[in-house]
Amino acid sequence: MQVTFTAAVAGASGYAGGELLRLLLAHPQIEIGALTAHASAGQRLGAHQPHLLPLADRVLEPTGVEALAGHDVVFLALPHGASGEVTAALAAAGSDAIVLDCGADHRLTDAAAWEQFYGSPHAGAWPYGLPELIVDGARQRDTLRTAREIAVPGCNVTAVTLALQPGVAAGVVDPADVVAVLAVGYSGAGKSAKTHLLAAEALGSLAPYAVGGTHRHVPEVEQNLRAAGAAEVRLSFTPVLVPTSRGILATVTAPLAPGASAATVRAAWEDAYADEPFVHLLPEGTWPTTAMVTGANTAAVQVAVDERAGRVVALCAIDNLVKGTAGAAVQSMNLALGLPETTGLTTVGVAP
Amino acid sequence: MQVTFTAAVAGASGYAGGELLRLLLAHPQIEIGALTAHASAGQRLGAHQPHLLPLADRVLEPTGVEALAGHDVVFLALPHGASGEVTAALAAAGSDAIVLDCGADHRLTDAAAWEQFYGSPHAGAWPYGLPELIVDGARQRDTLRTAREIAVPGCNVTAVTLALQPGVAAGVVDPADVVAVLAVGYSGAGKSAKTHLLAAEALGSLAPYAVGGTHRHVPEVEQNLRAAGAAEVRLSFTPVLVPTSRGILATVTAPLAPGASAATVRAAWEDAYADEPFVHLLPEGTWPTTAMVTGANTAAVQVAVDERAGRVVALCAIDNLVKGTAGAAVQSMNLALGLPETTGLTTVGVAP
Amino acid sequence: MQVTFTAAVAGASGYAGGELLRLLLAHPQIEIGALTAHASAGQRLGAHQPHLLPLADRVLEPTGVEALAGHDVVFLALPHGASGEVTAALAAAGSDAIVLDCGADHRLTDAAAWEQFYGSPHAGAWPYGLPELIVDGARQRDTLRTAREIAVPGCNVTAVTLALQPGVAAGVVDPADVVAVLAVGYSGAGKSAKTHLLAAEALGSLAPYAVGGTHRHVPEVEQNLRAAGAAEVRLSFTPVLVPTSRGILATVTAPLAPGASAATVRAAWEDAYADEPFVHLLPEGTWPTTAMVTGANTAAVQVAVDERAGRVVALCAIDNLVKGTAGAAVQSMNLALGLPETTGLTTVGVAP
Amino acid sequence: MQVTFTAAVAGASGYAGGELLRLLLAHPQIEIGALTAHASAGQRLGAHQPHLLPLADRVLEPTGVEALAGHDVVFLALPHGASGEVTAALAAAGSDAIVLDCGADHRLTDAAAWEQFYGSPHAGAWPYGLPELIVDGARQRDTLRTAREIAVPGCNVTAVTLALQPGVAAGVVDPADVVAVLAVGYSGAGKSAKTHLLAAEALGSLAPYAVGGTHRHVPEVEQNLRAAGAAEVRLSFTPVLVPTSRGILATVTAPLAPGASAATVRAAWEDAYADEPFVHLLPEGTWPTTAMVTGANTAAVQVAVDERAGRVVALCAIDNLVKGTAGAAVQSMNLALGLPETTGLTTVGVAP
Repeated sequence: MQVTFTAAVAGASGYAGGELLRLLLAHPQIEIGALTAHASAGQRLGAHQPHLLPLADRVLEPTGVEALAGHDVVFLALPHGASGEVTAALAAAGSDAIVLDCGADHRLTDAAAWEQFYGSPHAGAWPYGLPELIVDGARQRDTLRTAREIAVPGCNVTAVTLALQPGVAAGVVDPADVVAVLAVGYSGAGKSAKTHLLAAEALGSLAPYAVGGTHRHVPEVEQNLRAAGAAEVRLSFTPVLVPTSRGILATVTAPLAPGASAATVRAAWEDAYADEPFVHLLPEGTWPTTAMVTGANTAAVQVAVDERAGRVVALCAIDNLVKGTAGAAVQSMNLALGLPETTGLTTVGVAP
Repeated sequence: MQVTFTAAVAGASGYAGGELLRLLLAHPQIEIGALTAHASAGQRLGAHQPHLLPLADRVLEPTGVEALAGHDVVFLALPHGASGEVTAALAAAGSDAIVLDCGADHRLTDAAAWEQFYGSPHAGAWPYGLPELIVDGARQRDTLRTAREIAVPGCNVTAVTLALQPGVAAGVVDPADVVAVLAVGYSGAGKSAKTHLLAAEALGSLAPYAVGGTHRHVPEVEQNLRAAGAAEVRLSFTPVLVPTSRGILATVTAPLAPGASAATVRAAWEDAYADEPFVHLLPEGTWPTTAMVTGANTAAVQVAVDERAGRVVALCAIDNLVKGTAGAAVQSMNLALGLPETTGLTTVGVAP
Repeated sequence: MQVTFTAAVAGASGYAGGELLRLLLAHPQIEIGALTAHASAGQRLGAHQPHLLPLADRVLEPTGVEALAGHDVVFLALPHGASGEVTAALAAAGSDAIVLDCGADHRLTDAAAWEQFYGSPHAGAWPYGLPELIVDGARQRDTLRTAREIAVPGCNVTAVTLALQPGVAAGVVDPADVVAVLAVGYSGAGKSAKTHLLAAEALGSLAPYAVGGTHRHVPEVEQNLRAAGAAEVRLSFTPVLVPTSRGILATVTAPLAPGASAATVRAAWEDAYADEPFVHLLPEGTWPTTAMVTGANTAAVQVAVDERAGRVVALCAIDNLVKGTAGAAVQSMNLALGLPETTGLTTVGVAP
Repeated sequence: MQVTFTAAVAGASGYAGGELLRLLLAHPQIEIGALTAHASAGQRLGAHQPHLLPLADRVLEPTGVEALAGHDVVFLALPHGASGEVTAALAAAGSDAIVLDCGADHRLTDAAAWEQFYGSPHAGAWPYGLPELIVDGARQRDTLRTAREIAVPGCNVTAVTLALQPGVAAGVVDPADVVAVLAVGYSGAGKSAKTHLLAAEALGSLAPYAVGGTHRHVPEVEQNLRAAGAAEVRLSFTPVLVPTSRGILATVTAPLAPGASAATVRAAWEDAYADEPFVHLLPEGTWPTTAMVTGANTAAVQVAVDERAGRVVALCAIDNLVKGTAGAAVQSMNLALGLPETTGLTTVGVAP
């Protein structure tokens, strides 16, 4: 006998919502319940997510407690700032659903950092949905097994964290001077129509943004690296939009710590990820690409030591919509439901 | 009356050769002479460069002194290692042509660095074809005015150098810990058919290579930054292939030097490029994209100070085939011929 | 209890082989056996198919009966002309495997057409692996249930056939003047390194090929439309390579038959595909895109009547590697093994 | 001594306006005057067209007679329906400028067709700005030499017309059953932010639209082919958006006329374009690509006879923003100003 849980998705017309549904359709123990939207309420899902054929004729309901109550799991794929009201309403209605917020609202524990980077009052932190995060030598998955509210990480944050945390935890890199540059695809920017996100603008162009440490993912990476053991973190973070829909390729460098060597660096990464089902350390001398993880919940990682520069170079490729968002949410949900962590998730990419 | 010079292009069937011809067709004082190739000798140029309609019926001659002698200018767009023989044969034949080598053979002054990164004997250095390079407070263009042999810079090198050199020359950044990550298009990898360069592999993928300080452009950047005034240079350098044909977007960071500030940084970049016709410092708060320089000889540059990270972030966008290769060659040729430096070159990009 | 079958893949290093493995990994009743290659024999699969993480350490064996014998199913993803020898050797070795050939060798029943378009002796026809093909009012799946050797259709052929066959079978279009133009992605051209398939050539370019009726898929489409009921078929067929890795969008027009109307046309398509699990006729007024079928075994179809032009316009979007190749092979295998036709296959695309 | 004319551009913030300015910057006899916009009036041009460096600091004025009066030439790159008011105001103000409308308002001579396809009152036809159009055996350029108001053709129309008109004029194809399928880039859809034009939607997708004869360019093609000599035109027209910014590749087929042959077809195309500076008939057996015309005012054309299908296949590749819009406008302007037709325009593409 197999237990089945019901799951609702709020924000089902967007990219994160669509990807959640794609993964949930493949999950053997989830029954998809209510699908909600804001402006698109009343429309067929097929008008927004034509690739989800089995759900094409489902009708979007207005986002609210009427639709969302009564499920075992509620995924929130809403604009930043919108999750608080929904969560409060669910609680008031007596819902005991596990709530997973794909937005940023509950990721940061530091209220001051929240207010500095988001410019709004802090809504408080929820358990952080990165099972592989090293926390004081243990892993975040232990916390997630008992969580009822989970903050799904930012996609860029996941890539940078998974790239570098083994070195931080093992003390073989110096986290006080981290430089991260990310080539990122356009689906990470969401489905709102903006001129600079048009195909005609994007094709043939490479376009940095949020340069100079202003990206909202900066304090979230810092928080993670501190969890992994960093006394002080300083992070230079630059994302560059490149013409692909999915994918993040993070190049993260940090100074080699005194006494560390190529061997101790390799060992740190191997030890950190030897037992991780979704983080794959590549054979030495091969580099991760986003093609190898498209559609999969895999983070492909590699590390090299540049003796000449005195820096460790760590690379991580993820699909921003899977391991970067929806896959991370499902993985965390599995933990919170007491299911095997890998249920319904794949490490097989869609390439070429 | 307008003087006209004749120019030959060796390696006319490749990407660099094609771009040289595209630019020379627009140059009012150049008459295109012999076009040579190796495997494709005897074929119509139109079979290899169908976009160069006015030259479609020109026939490729074998690369050698028979074809190349007798011109005022000879451009070499050959594989690394091939320029020595051609140059010697031209000299032996009494040619007094200005020779511009788009290959790497004569870029490095340090024989040991050459041998370490290229694994072959050093062929000696030629004057370096980056007119904007700061050399002991002056500019490299002064040297180029009397040069007869010119080494055209590597495309990635040009992007990194132009991004960062103002800060090095002004002493507002610390060149001992430079980190450069470049998103680069596929035309920079050349026209040889290799599996990892196939469209099916590239589309939808982000693919780093030469990670860990092994890229041959590393010592060339170091050489340039030392010319600009760095006592010690350490460079972490990672290129990432992204799905576009043309374009390099270099993100270059270095620690803010003690005593430097956002104001002194801004001033350094403004001073360095105020009079440069082909380096465009963008208005504050706007970021360079490769779309704005496609087809143009422009380097679009921006700089920001990340106080939180303690680093200066300098960005440079170029078209790797123009300012990165063929445009730089023509610009240097103009100087060597005594023509206005901007003759036949444009700062207007082809966008979107 | 669930029966499991073993499957070998010959040609596992190429695109079709890789996609077969991707699908077989998701198939609940297949155990993946030998993987073979020619030039890459002896290498790790991960060196060629890094996205297939669970198989990364499997070693490629030389293609031949030693490796391939002893399986329940053998997939051949070999260059045209190579399947005959392997099949004969398997038979000689007493293999009773179901053999599915993804190459062209056994698709055509007409030896003269084979020799005209392929220029080599005809190897004979195998049952044709398009379950949805209308054959004298029935479907090809009936034949496939007892087949032991199956010829997997060409990818372009599948798109054109599924687009138009309902109209041919119902007599509402005139198959004597069919025009098909296909926008096709680069993975359909295979993994061999050729200059015109380079990313630098493909990005930003739209490139027709095999213009004027010379494409080898022409006689195969004609064969299918005759099967569907056409007395005479004339087909103008033009493929255009466009910068995407996966996907075929076929635009197929034919004259509206005398007496036919928008209503009878709609009815023909609805009737033909009402019960097909993998052919999805879209709601009226919406158009298929390849994004909606990426990674899925779906053919998304639409039809419209252009009264002004007197033509029916039928559109079909498929993923050339799935419904166009590997998915069709698995679907046919399911039938031949007596499994439910949809086992292990999805209709959910990976988008955006 | 060289005469200079002043030109204003209304709608300078959009794609057509930007491309006009790119071409006018290279035109030796044009001085760029007022630049106007609607919502963006008051802003720097550089905020909208950062690739036009020499004009970056020019300020956009409100579109109206105040800004536009007093020029020799006025280009209108406005939404459909907006040109009438501006033109009337210019006339009322005594302007004798040559006005070139890049919008559709004055392209169609048939008021009924206008009203059917555009749903608004017909504004009347202006001389049609396709100099190469065959009109009763002569060319449209003769008309343009004396025109003061010129309707610039639609980009798709130009591609289809130039592909097929030689056959129509020579009577070697039957224009009563033309089928045109176009692969088109995203810049043709304009710069307005719409969800289906987002990069995340476009990348990896092939997306038809306006299927079934509803595209507004249909009656315009028909008008052109009638001008070229067709008694009756029937046109099936399907555009497919593909992931590139610039470029149209039109595949146009029509039945081979009775008595016509491969030789008479070839001769028709050769005769039609032998003297055309911007239409390039490729050598037999080679196919046009959009890469070869990117940034150039060239139409690359090829024709083949498919004896098996009984159809002529004509292909045309253009850059939709150059020969499809802005280049056509400048070419027509040259004629109207009495300048050599090719002034300031290039046939050299930017490739790869």
